[in-house]
Amino acid sequence: MADTTNMNRKKRAEILVNMGNGIYKQIEKGENPSLTLPVRGLSNVKYSKESGMITMGSNTANRYFLNVGHVRKFIQTVSVASISKTLIDSDKHTSLRDVFYQMRRTIPGTNIDVVDEQTETDKAIEDLEVITDLTREQLHITANQAGQVAGEVTIEDRGDTIDWSKMGSGGWAIPSTTEDIEFKKVNAKFVIYMEKQAIWQRLNEDKAWKKLNCIIIASQGQATRGIRRLLQRLYHEQHLPVYVLTDGDIWGVYIYSAIKFGSIALAHVSEKLALPEAKFMGLTMDDIEKYGLKRHLIKFKDVDIARLKQIKNYEWFKNSKQWMAELEKMEKLGAKVELNAFTAKGLSFLTEHYLPEKLKEKNFLD
Amino acid sequence: MADTTNMNRKKRAEILVNMGNGIYKQIEKGENPSLTLPVRGLSNVKYSKESGMITMGSNTANRYFLNVGHVRKFIQTVSVASISKTLIDSDKHTSLRDVFYQMRRTIPGTNIDVVDEQTETDKAIEDLEVITDLTREQLHITANQAGQVAGEVTIEDRGDTIDWSKMGSGGWAIPSTTEDIEFKKVNAKFVIYMEKQAIWQRLNEDKAWKKLNCIIIASQGQATRGIRRLLQRLYHEQHLPVYVLTDGDIWGVYIYSAIKFGSIALAHVSEKLALPEAKFMGLTMDDIEKYGLKRHLIKFKDVDIARLKQIKNYEWFKNSKQWMAELEKMEKLGAKVELNAFTAKGLSFLTEHYLPEKLKEKNFLD
Repeated sequence: MADTTNMNRKKRAEILVNMGNGIYKQIEKGENPSLTLPVRGLSNVKYSKESGMITMGSNTANRYFLNVGHVRKFIQTVSVASISKTLIDSDKHTSLRDVFYQMRRTIPGTNIDVVDEQTETDKAIEDLEVITDLTREQLHITANQAGQVAGEVTIEDRGDTIDWSKMGSGGWAIPSTTEDIEFKKVNAKFVIYMEKQAIWQRLNEDKAWKKLNCIIIASQGQATRGIRRLLQRLYHEQHLPVYVLTDGDIWGVYIYSAIKFGSIALAHVSEKLALPEAKFMGLTMDDIEKYGLKRHLIKFKDVDIARLKQIKNYEWFKNSKQWMAELEKMEKLGAKVELNAFTAKGLSFLTEHYLPEKLKEKNFLD
Repeated sequence: MADTTNMNRKKRAEILVNMGNGIYKQIEKGENPSLTLPVRGLSNVKYSKESGMITMGSNTANRYFLNVGHVRKFIQTVSVASISKTLIDSDKHTSLRDVFYQMRRTIPGTNIDVVDEQTETDKAIEDLEVITDLTREQLHITANQAGQVAGEVTIEDRGDTIDWSKMGSGGWAIPSTTEDIEFKKVNAKFVIYMEKQAIWQRLNEDKAWKKLNCIIIASQGQATRGIRRLLQRLYHEQHLPVYVLTDGDIWGVYIYSAIKFGSIALAHVSEKLALPEAKFMGLTMDDIEKYGLKRHLIKFKDVDIARLKQIKNYEWFKNSKQWMAELEKMEKLGAKVELNAFTAKGLSFLTEHYLPEKLKEKNFLD
């Protein structure tokens, strides 16, 4: 299959046309129309050492039109393809929820609806992703947007020229689809993604992006798909290292994990969202000693301990001696520490000490 | 007390200095240092028909330094005032969480910490808001930011000139503090706040802000404090009507209610956040018939019914025949309807039909 990563709109539409033509030919030949798609679910998801990502295995299955157990899903998948084709042609985007309403109609001459619940259309959209090797965003179906960015970067998006260094205290709001942004001028040496709005606001007010010559990006907690794709594009197209800045706790580790390795639920789009080259510049257990943060420890709750045990068992962490040592230390300490604790040392300690030191010492977890 | 609404930085710092001087004089006179503050809590919160907002009553209480029950809170309130003064002087901002860490120190010669939990500093910050009649934002203590804006408006913020009509698919990310934004050029007839990111994305892609000559703002769900203040400023300073666009359900009604009347928890800052002139342009029960949305009704769950019963009892809705009729209809129908349902009628139905018709017919709930 052709590499679909940076495929333009016309080519993406062609993939959908070819899918339709394939079904049409089957009908003409008097065959039972079918779609071949990779098996989804845990049994066919694995961590690939070579690529450093969580990816789908090679098991496939056929879905038939003339099969009582398959026909509903078959129709839903083809319906999504049709909606997506219209969206791509008109260069418009729609949300998961909206696709549900667009597809929700009664099949003529019956009292059967094509879909009853949004979970069905969501599933059909994921199926279309694996069949076409295009992401939802490339199919013009978007998630909610969240997060913002600042830095000395000029982009073009939908005909507007946008300078990320002239965004005041707010930043540029990152859209749900970062697929079609064009980088016009990039003056930055690296990118920091942070999990906390408050930290971004501090770094932006300090103009840390100017002082450290970098790009700063935040949402709240997990990075959105739009942000993950943006990080990946900045790495691949602009060759900027990407660092993940989180609290020293297991939730921070998981935020890093999803950015770097991808996730089980989104294994089928890892190649367009995961970034195995991302590095962790969040608080480590050694930083607690180094920066005298002992008094700011927050004892683990049961839920923290349970999550830690889970994550220690992830194959992609088990592969890393450095990470296993870190997680052992965290478990032994039984407490977390927040980036905000640096405020006790001065409002801009993060910008003036922590970040420059991490960068100078290349003190990242990988 | 002077009107603190648009008070500049220097004057805001003076209020804090005066507060400190007051305590200092009490000490010099050999008095027990005390602070006078309005009683907070339900007993002293009321809906004011005159102002059309939820506001604080006039009951006040004294808090004494030399009182075992008061001293801890007294010290915390004065500590926040000191932190805030430093922030205002240096023109820096910090988050609620960060204030907690800044204040978290042991009183010399004791083993007592000034604060143990963030709830204590949060409370102290609210106390300082009522004592000074300044909002948290005016005291340079910020919440998380969320949401974005587009429209033909040029602002100045932190030295940057920002054109909200040239923000591509993302929009300008609205900061947590919209206090110090300067409006330079405003070409808009009204403002729409919407509760859903997906709706904003649709309106932005349709360039509805250009077609309808308006400003479009969204966060996800409840409007942030930064957005509420921005809506208020656009109304008061730019004389733009503000419309709230939500689903036809009780949660949409509450989002509208908080923007318009303020909320019980934030009664002490209603004057700087609430906007009694805001109007509801969300889906009404009559719209279901009018736009043929019956097939898209979603049956109420228990939680919807419970919330509806609560809101029907709010004094500010009881005052309005129009709203009581609407809530009765909603209860009778026992179902909600989403703006996304319009997608079934065409992707841009909202931009091309619903919004222009609401505006033309002035079909708002007030």
